[in-house]
Amino acid sequence: MRRPLITIACIAAALAVTPPAVGQTARPEPGPLTIAKQGSFFVGGRDVTSDTLSTLPNYAPSGTITVDQMYVRYQVPAGPLGIPVTLVHGCCLTGKTWETTPDGRMGWDEYFVRRGHPTYVIDQVWRGRSAANPSSINAVRAGKAPVEQLPTVFSAGHEGAWAIFRFGKTYPEVMPGLRFPLAAQAEFWKQMVPDSLASLPTPNPTVPALSDLAGRIGGTVLMSHSQSGIYPFQAATLSRRGIAGIVSIEPGACPEPTDDMAPYRDLPILVVFGDYVDAFPRWAPRLRTCRAFVAAANAAGGRAELLLLPDIGIKGNSHMLMQDDNSLEIADLLLDWIDRHAGAAR
Amino acid sequence: MRRPLITIACIAAALAVTPPAVGQTARPEPGPLTIAKQGSFFVGGRDVTSDTLSTLPNYAPSGTITVDQMYVRYQVPAGPLGIPVTLVHGCCLTGKTWETTPDGRMGWDEYFVRRGHPTYVIDQVWRGRSAANPSSINAVRAGKAPVEQLPTVFSAGHEGAWAIFRFGKTYPEVMPGLRFPLAAQAEFWKQMVPDSLASLPTPNPTVPALSDLAGRIGGTVLMSHSQSGIYPFQAATLSRRGIAGIVSIEPGACPEPTDDMAPYRDLPILVVFGDYVDAFPRWAPRLRTCRAFVAAANAAGGRAELLLLPDIGIKGNSHMLMQDDNSLEIADLLLDWIDRHAGAAR
Repeated sequence: MRRPLITIACIAAALAVTPPAVGQTARPEPGPLTIAKQGSFFVGGRDVTSDTLSTLPNYAPSGTITVDQMYVRYQVPAGPLGIPVTLVHGCCLTGKTWETTPDGRMGWDEYFVRRGHPTYVIDQVWRGRSAANPSSINAVRAGKAPVEQLPTVFSAGHEGAWAIFRFGKTYPEVMPGLRFPLAAQAEFWKQMVPDSLASLPTPNPTVPALSDLAGRIGGTVLMSHSQSGIYPFQAATLSRRGIAGIVSIEPGACPEPTDDMAPYRDLPILVVFGDYVDAFPRWAPRLRTCRAFVAAANAAGGRAELLLLPDIGIKGNSHMLMQDDNSLEIADLLLDWIDRHAGAAR
Repeated sequence: MRRPLITIACIAAALAVTPPAVGQTARPEPGPLTIAKQGSFFVGGRDVTSDTLSTLPNYAPSGTITVDQMYVRYQVPAGPLGIPVTLVHGCCLTGKTWETTPDGRMGWDEYFVRRGHPTYVIDQVWRGRSAANPSSINAVRAGKAPVEQLPTVFSAGHEGAWAIFRFGKTYPEVMPGLRFPLAAQAEFWKQMVPDSLASLPTPNPTVPALSDLAGRIGGTVLMSHSQSGIYPFQAATLSRRGIAGIVSIEPGACPEPTDDMAPYRDLPILVVFGDYVDAFPRWAPRLRTCRAFVAAANAAGGRAELLLLPDIGIKGNSHMLMQDDNSLEIADLLLDWIDRHAGAAR
């Protein structure tokens, strides 16, 4: 974390653009991007039978559907490759999190590819392009199940999400120096979708799917955000196969420091938080738990770090730091850390 | 439709690969792809307030959410550009329809880009990465609304979908000569998601969103499939702005021949069906209506065509012809038609 200027100069050279000063947000158009391979697929999934798939006459109520699969879209750039990175979104969102920002700037999904990393973007199971099961809704509607068996599915309203994303302490107050592009907030709200997490078992089926994906890729950094923060750690507990490192961005939860730390031994782990954390009762305890986890992991032979961005002079970042106006500067920091700790170009 | 061999030779030259014989499915790896610009955004959307967003203590029940927006992902290739194409998926599916096929071959989303067409892939509103509204589920769960107000949301089971997709007349019977990659059917079933169409107003909010998108692109062919077949026609009725043509793949409905044909005057329209249509009671009447529509449109100054693939010697295609083993051959036919009727490279 000591060489952001050098790092940015190297990236700029690779991209053949003028290096921006640290903290400067406008970047020139980067020019064409050459892709060696791209596509999408699913990981996981299981067949379930139901007699309440539909209440419509044109679609049979009984049959088999496939659920718990995880949608994955990927791009592999041409040229020397860095370690693959898998991007795992958080609550009430989809893989769109990592794509074009609300104000139209390049997302990390493309920027990481431009930096040479094969990049995999997932939709958590039961969300986005990963199918949910509507059977319990139709069972209640058909009078075959009580109302209590309806799924637990919620949406986060703009007003409540405001403090969760640390745009301000209460809606519509704004934190001083905030770097989230609030002028484009209407585009951000469009990214939010209903969340069925509370209807799913623990660990979330996304966790074994991430484990399978890491094995298929054969070595990837799992980069989580918020709600998904615990998933890569849970995946490492299932198996270390294919997991080259973990970058946990503003995790909703770190492992408890009293947990077994053996799954994390010698695994490069970076936990990152933005600004204003201590001012938010939802976030301050999470940061404390993550600090304690990092200490416990390292005491057990781990290679864990915690980075609080204001500690290195980067201020104003919201919870959505992949969309803040300095998002590419933060991407550079993370990719530099990944190159140094989890594997550089090969 | 008379020059498939010439067309394929031209494409092969453009891609610098050996031209395959017509009907031959194996194609060599096409090599790197250079993208001038890519990204994602939403079109449409409206704010709604609700007091049943959540039944969980951590998420407020009351607030504002944004719904009815349509997710769009796009890629623009480097080099001379053909007319942009917008791909609109059908029932119980998402934009994944057009991506990597179940058996791992290149999807039309990429192939169209390789043929020089800026390509836009959408998720219909309330599906995939386009948010639904969970308020009515939570209203019933909270005892604030009767069971009848639950949303109408269904999934198509494998067994029932079998005949809808024309894999066979009844599950698991297979049509003779079928070109759908049934060995990979497990991967296809993973693409299917719950469908909220019946909970939405008519026209579906996807229709004005497609109209807005066409205006933003400033000239695009709207290519629909199945359930979405009527949407581009409805969009053209709203406004012709930005609509350079319509390719309707196996539409669930064409406009009625008694409808006002003025919106389609001088608009290039191609309606395409695969094989076995007459053997399926769900599909045969749709083909007949589309034939009558094409005749009515042309009688009113239209430029509409209907293409039944077996009529030009291409047999074995299912309803999912963008995933059948000759999918790129069909793509060539459609892009050749688009180049000739809606605008070639510029």
